[in-house]
Amino acid sequence: MFYREEIQIETTGHRDMHELTCRVEAIAERSGIKNGLVHVFNEGSTGVIGTIEYEPGLERDLPEMLDRLIPPSLDYGHERQWHDGNGHSHLQASLAGPETTIPLANGRLVLGAWQQVFHLEADIKPRTRRIIVTVLGG
Amino acid sequence: MFYREEIQIETTGHRDMHELTCRVEAIAERSGIKNGLVHVFNEGSTGVIGTIEYEPGLERDLPEMLDRLIPPSLDYGHERQWHDGNGHSHLQASLAGPETTIPLANGRLVLGAWQQVFHLEADIKPRTRRIIVTVLGG
Amino acid sequence: MFYREEIQIETTGHRDMHELTCRVEAIAERSGIKNGLVHVFNEGSTGVIGTIEYEPGLERDLPEMLDRLIPPSLDYGHERQWHDGNGHSHLQASLAGPETTIPLANGRLVLGAWQQVFHLEADIKPRTRRIIVTVLGG
Repeated sequence: MFYREEIQIETTGHRDMHELTCRVEAIAERSGIKNGLVHVFNEGSTGVIGTIEYEPGLERDLPEMLDRLIPPSLDYGHERQWHDGNGHSHLQASLAGPETTIPLANGRLVLGAWQQVFHLEADIKPRTRRIIVTVLGG
Repeated sequence: MFYREEIQIETTGHRDMHELTCRVEAIAERSGIKNGLVHVFNEGSTGVIGTIEYEPGLERDLPEMLDRLIPPSLDYGHERQWHDGNGHSHLQASLAGPETTIPLANGRLVLGAWQQVFHLEADIKPRTRRIIVTVLGG
Repeated sequence: MFYREEIQIETTGHRDMHELTCRVEAIAERSGIKNGLVHVFNEGSTGVIGTIEYEPGLERDLPEMLDRLIPPSLDYGHERQWHDGNGHSHLQASLAGPETTIPLANGRLVLGAWQQVFHLEADIKPRTRRIIVTVLGG
């Protein structure tokens, strides 16, 4: 069995985070599928999907950590080629990844009590993001 | 076709690693599914699942590398908020990721000869970990 | 429904990248499956699969970023044990990850206009790589 739905979010640009757990869970419910896997995917090369304890501290820490490891200020080949100022955005998103998969058991996402699904905007300007949620199961 | 089973492990805290390949393969076998995908997921926001050449050198190198990139000693918003000492654990787990998916072919996991499935404890105290293994296929 | 096919590539060694989108899309087409998920997996512990805007700038930036964060020059336990010079290769591949999953909608991979599937060779010598593409869907 298979089901797909999209989530649309508006981001304010670099470092903006969204909590998606409830919306992903609602899609899993609408799917009618009770057991299997739920896949969450950011369409585009400068957005990140993952899981985290979604609270104000880590909402600041995660993008700050990525900017510390992959700073906007370095000299990137992408910049020399395109001059669009988002070389670090691409590298952050490729390293952290645009997708995650979560088990579905008896109609519920299997997540820890402090484990939520997040979207992180790595691009430097506000973006409308399409997030594709796919449910596969039996 | 769909099958799910859980693995439980006891970790000794930060930097502790477990090799899971045999237990994941045994679950795939019990599933009766011969071809498809096997998904391995750590429930909770401070544990990592991935693949690595599982040998004593890298068992030391991987957690050391994560502590070098995301040190326990930095000033994290998570700490200011919660004072539980594991801000770095959350960030390490969100970056390295709590899950992986492996192809299943003719009843065997498709892995390189030196590629094993691991769990890494990123939290600072011993934890009982539930690892959810889902097999989907035809 | 389930379908699997392999891609074989020859890499020139550390930092070599390949664009795989067209070959993955061709496999999805041959599968006859129209909607579901496409999983792309590097067999072996020193290769990376992910998505990126595939252009010459980032083709230089991504391996350079990984070498900056996880340098070949550090003292790794893997080196002391095996003296094969690729400790950093293992760590880069375990962090960046050997696999990705992409939604399949109406027979097409759901990717952004500037989002392609890549393979990155993290090992230090030329390798023949087997990349396993699995399509699951309804």
